[in-house]
Amino acid sequence: MISLNTHICRLLGIDYPIIQAGMAGGPTTAELVAEVSEAGALGTLGAAYLTPEKLREDIVEIRKRTNKPFAVNLFAPAPKDDFSRIAEVKQTLQPIYEELAIEVQSAEYRSPDHGEELFRICLELNVPIISTAFGSLSPEHMASAKAQGVTIITMATTVGEALDAQAAGADAVVAQGSEAGGHRGSFSFDRHPMGAQVGLMALLPQVADAVDVPVIAAGGIADGRGLVASLTLGAQAVQVGTRFVAAKESGAHKAYKQAIFDSDEESTVVTKSFSGRPARGIKNYFIEQFESSGTKPLPFPSQNTVTKEIRGAAAKAGNPQFMSLWAGQATRAMTQEEGAAEIVSSMMDQARALLW
Amino acid sequence: MISLNTHICRLLGIDYPIIQAGMAGGPTTAELVAEVSEAGALGTLGAAYLTPEKLREDIVEIRKRTNKPFAVNLFAPAPKDDFSRIAEVKQTLQPIYEELAIEVQSAEYRSPDHGEELFRICLELNVPIISTAFGSLSPEHMASAKAQGVTIITMATTVGEALDAQAAGADAVVAQGSEAGGHRGSFSFDRHPMGAQVGLMALLPQVADAVDVPVIAAGGIADGRGLVASLTLGAQAVQVGTRFVAAKESGAHKAYKQAIFDSDEESTVVTKSFSGRPARGIKNYFIEQFESSGTKPLPFPSQNTVTKEIRGAAAKAGNPQFMSLWAGQATRAMTQEEGAAEIVSSMMDQARALLW
Repeated sequence: MISLNTHICRLLGIDYPIIQAGMAGGPTTAELVAEVSEAGALGTLGAAYLTPEKLREDIVEIRKRTNKPFAVNLFAPAPKDDFSRIAEVKQTLQPIYEELAIEVQSAEYRSPDHGEELFRICLELNVPIISTAFGSLSPEHMASAKAQGVTIITMATTVGEALDAQAAGADAVVAQGSEAGGHRGSFSFDRHPMGAQVGLMALLPQVADAVDVPVIAAGGIADGRGLVASLTLGAQAVQVGTRFVAAKESGAHKAYKQAIFDSDEESTVVTKSFSGRPARGIKNYFIEQFESSGTKPLPFPSQNTVTKEIRGAAAKAGNPQFMSLWAGQATRAMTQEEGAAEIVSSMMDQARALLW
Repeated sequence: MISLNTHICRLLGIDYPIIQAGMAGGPTTAELVAEVSEAGALGTLGAAYLTPEKLREDIVEIRKRTNKPFAVNLFAPAPKDDFSRIAEVKQTLQPIYEELAIEVQSAEYRSPDHGEELFRICLELNVPIISTAFGSLSPEHMASAKAQGVTIITMATTVGEALDAQAAGADAVVAQGSEAGGHRGSFSFDRHPMGAQVGLMALLPQVADAVDVPVIAAGGIADGRGLVASLTLGAQAVQVGTRFVAAKESGAHKAYKQAIFDSDEESTVVTKSFSGRPARGIKNYFIEQFESSGTKPLPFPSQNTVTKEIRGAAAKAGNPQFMSLWAGQATRAMTQEEGAAEIVSSMMDQARALLW
């Protein structure tokens, strides 16, 4: 018996087993997050690239718009970069800097790391749910979050990662299939330099069989069919990214949304060229150029910092060929902007019809 | 309303919407095929590497064992090889030939192509269902098969390929997700040199929305959960490979079955090193050696021919490090040999319980 009213709905305090993914870097405006939560699903603020000030503002703004629970997504700490290859990568990017008439700010290529402060703000402002990518919260952070009653969701791309996340204290784990747009949430990079890429149909039941905590399915889920299929395979909820990137309330650039509408299941690749970590996005000129250069990307987040001006210039010019167009493999389902509440209700309607 | 009694069951003359994949090269004994069909699902003889004589024998043997429908799987014709790089690849394989004490038969590296004859035998012996990988039957073959009332199933890995297959006359298409073990059924290699790798959760609904013929889901489906999830996503049946490789009646080597039992969702890679065409298998010493050599594999089937003696010696020695251990990403579900009829009934029981 497949039911839409799963245990995790009670754990998270939501009506519907749908989570809007915490996509850092623009899409998850306070408006989007609040709208999703207000519609009965769980909105997630992708906070990892925000300044501490902006995180405070956004949390305050979300609370103005809804009394319902929401989540904040953070990144687990990255290994340290020794900054020894910045010049080499900048050399590779030189033709693109020139093409986009970017005057490169050479002074500061150390990425600001606000991770600690962002986490403190979440606790200070009583964020009810924290989710993380690239690993678990540190034991210290996990202990303080738990002490305050925060619910913790950790993303995993293999059974081993899911077991690690559970052992580290996760209240729920996301099983992220290879279909998923954006960064691979992997943290066993020694085994999988490009992130583990297990299709959700195979990954989900294997994770669900292995862990005791509720499992959230992610990757290529764009409608009520994906929701019901995921519940069938052992998930208690789904996490949806790309469809919400293309939502009216999303802060994604118009050209990025259009690229999603124009794309299909063959359009994306997994690349490290934008951030230094493997992520799935629509293949464009920038990815082609960087990958054919033969230059190894810098470690995350240095590669992300070095390509920031390029992405900024691309946004200004509305040129999708130099933007990071993160998207999953189910983009035929997206053909135009929709309201976030509409997305939630149409997924639920379709799921109910299937389970009728 | 999700039902296990789909239209394709009537089209194929089967009781249950489960198809045992037509895996060439050993696993699909006449016994396995007959046992699966007799159990109410559809057995498939993977005939592409068989001699014409052996195909005849197997079909006769299947018919002795069951009156129920079965399928024969063939390969669409491969592009011609100019045989210009045989010496280079043999050079790369030299250390392995020595390690396994193989005396290389240098005379004949042109692979026998029985494709035409195998197809004729299927028609002559009134095989009711023919499925193909790597593309559709040629227009001539399609016309003769149709004239004789043969049901045609074509494998696709993208929406575009599925539409092509439908246009070429397929009565049903297999949507093969990236999770699938064995060869990628792709035939748009100009766009996807390693085969398109779209996860089934994303691929299946997009294919089902695009074509009019019934869709069969393949890739990472190992139990009743995968069956119900696939029906939910728009399929009318599932195709299961790896779980049947490990069946009692399968002709797969004992060491190959054991490698499946010992593997998990992280164990496989997509490689061209055995056959020249991308295929998913458990990573072993041979794959590591060939891929790290930097030598480009020969086109299919030449690479398959050149590595044949290695696989033969490995089988003789029971050494899985030099076998092609084709497997999908759902192998945690397989822990011991099971009877083929047991596999069918346990999948159906689990599916019925979910839909209760």
